[in-house]
Amino acid sequence: MSDIRPVLWDAGRIRLLDQTSLPVKEQQLICADVNTLVDAIDRLVVRGAPALGVVGGFGVALAIVQAEREGWDDGRLRVEIARIRNARPTAVNLAWGVDQVIGFIDQGLSRVLELAHEIAEQDEAANRQLSKLGADWILEVTGKTRLRVLTHCNTGSLATSTWGTGLGIVRELHSRGAIEIVYVDETRPLLQGSRLTAWELSKDGINYLVQADGAAASTIIRGLVDFAVIGADRIAKNGDTANKIGSLGVALACKEAGIPFMVAAPSSTVDITYENGDSIEIELRSPEEVTNLNGVQTAPELDRGFNPAFDVTPAKFISAVVTEHGVAEPIRGESVEGLVK
Amino acid sequence: MSDIRPVLWDAGRIRLLDQTSLPVKEQQLICADVNTLVDAIDRLVVRGAPALGVVGGFGVALAIVQAEREGWDDGRLRVEIARIRNARPTAVNLAWGVDQVIGFIDQGLSRVLELAHEIAEQDEAANRQLSKLGADWILEVTGKTRLRVLTHCNTGSLATSTWGTGLGIVRELHSRGAIEIVYVDETRPLLQGSRLTAWELSKDGINYLVQADGAAASTIIRGLVDFAVIGADRIAKNGDTANKIGSLGVALACKEAGIPFMVAAPSSTVDITYENGDSIEIELRSPEEVTNLNGVQTAPELDRGFNPAFDVTPAKFISAVVTEHGVAEPIRGESVEGLVK
Repeated sequence: MSDIRPVLWDAGRIRLLDQTSLPVKEQQLICADVNTLVDAIDRLVVRGAPALGVVGGFGVALAIVQAEREGWDDGRLRVEIARIRNARPTAVNLAWGVDQVIGFIDQGLSRVLELAHEIAEQDEAANRQLSKLGADWILEVTGKTRLRVLTHCNTGSLATSTWGTGLGIVRELHSRGAIEIVYVDETRPLLQGSRLTAWELSKDGINYLVQADGAAASTIIRGLVDFAVIGADRIAKNGDTANKIGSLGVALACKEAGIPFMVAAPSSTVDITYENGDSIEIELRSPEEVTNLNGVQTAPELDRGFNPAFDVTPAKFISAVVTEHGVAEPIRGESVEGLVK
Repeated sequence: MSDIRPVLWDAGRIRLLDQTSLPVKEQQLICADVNTLVDAIDRLVVRGAPALGVVGGFGVALAIVQAEREGWDDGRLRVEIARIRNARPTAVNLAWGVDQVIGFIDQGLSRVLELAHEIAEQDEAANRQLSKLGADWILEVTGKTRLRVLTHCNTGSLATSTWGTGLGIVRELHSRGAIEIVYVDETRPLLQGSRLTAWELSKDGINYLVQADGAAASTIIRGLVDFAVIGADRIAKNGDTANKIGSLGVALACKEAGIPFMVAAPSSTVDITYENGDSIEIELRSPEEVTNLNGVQTAPELDRGFNPAFDVTPAKFISAVVTEHGVAEPIRGESVEGLVK
């Protein structure tokens, strides 16, 4: 299977797979300085919570290299690292990645790099482990050997160090010969499904079809799907899950059809400081992401868009939450506390 | 309120409001011959079931005018009318409009025109009547004086002779001061919501926000909506309703939130030859409507799109079906037979 890695350290520079030009062009962006990296994060050249964690670690290394080349003092170095850390204020993982390594700057570049590589390796290991657990669970619960899956947004290699969470489970099932087809919600407004997920599936030779988000309920209720799997941005203690807008509608349709609705994420996504999803803040993004598409105005007034980036799916609709530590079944009242170790 | 009329007879020609260039440009297409009209229907310059009925009637008149001008014999005239009648094979109303007037050709152009105008007038009258009935019903059922509405696709003036069905109810409520906001599903893949519905609401000064289709479930379940209203392409005897893809997901969310889900259509849409929705054929349209947007490729393989144009919402999720003859409540087991007279 393709070895898609959105973030790589390459001889003193960070090499990003430019996700803004996918699926039409597959090109790399080389970041040789902090300015280029911060701009790339801002423009979503790289995105996805676990992937941004990796960027945070390597970002500190990049700043150290530039500091040595340009003779920055320690104060300037700290300022530049803070710029990376804050490039996406809502991206918890970016700051987390920076914080994992920033205490080791005094030990030198090679120590920082070692830790940054560890972040990436641990993410990949967690993804591969949760993929096995998720695949085992769904094969057992459905009792089927060939599965028709529906996914929303992008939860693959492009959103992580590599392999993926929800799409990692699909890859694992595919490696066991158990995937018949993947229905890919295009995931408006930013089309992460059609642009990124379909691209990953195409690379791996996994059978798929892209559909409008509005088609998901019908595809599920007509009996064309065996289970749905999504990722997560934050999972509360009771299993309520914040994820890309459109996830909740998929969950409702799965409940009506009586098929499993699965959430896949590394354990770092489980936030037991939230009792439930009620207090999770829903980020409102720019109206123009909805009213303007590929530079073409699609609505009469550009500012009349309602653009919540996430929704919260109540635990009662979630058949399984899968992390690298196990599977919990919130639909049956199980807490996800045991998935954090 | 704006007097939007998508189809007008204008001194021997048909004047169409070009819906392909909305919402950015408001321009007319003059059809002075059958070729231009057939091409316009094919390109969706005019669309919407009731509007196509009006086009069918005026189309026959246009063919008569061209026949006189160019000296066609009766055989040629019949061939050209058949081309209009078949320009959209799935559009029942287009053929119906042609059939309403074709038997009167021998009585001359003025008689045909009189009947074509009658089609338009009767459609408007039906729309205005069902709008009153729908507005009365929702105000009574909700007990509210200000309503937050969610709509899907375009059910307004642009889809009818004028005024609209689902959007007609919104206009009626607005005229009674009872609309707080309309959440407009953009309605992928062809964006009839953001391009057409938002444009109509903007013209009429009705408060609205456009959202991605994936946002509908969350907007409803967060409590931001008092009821949803859609149109219909075909309504079976038990109330099962075929409508634009994405309608079913809206219905599921309304059921979960406990708010009314309403279907508005002229009685001609009720087809009691269908006992229920199981046998309604779902039209599959071109994959490229999903994978290619404004000429930009949005998925890695253009032919890997799944593009059902409609879904079927079961009667058990439909709080009310409204036609010009009354309101039925399929959710309570009521048949819609009484709405056809």
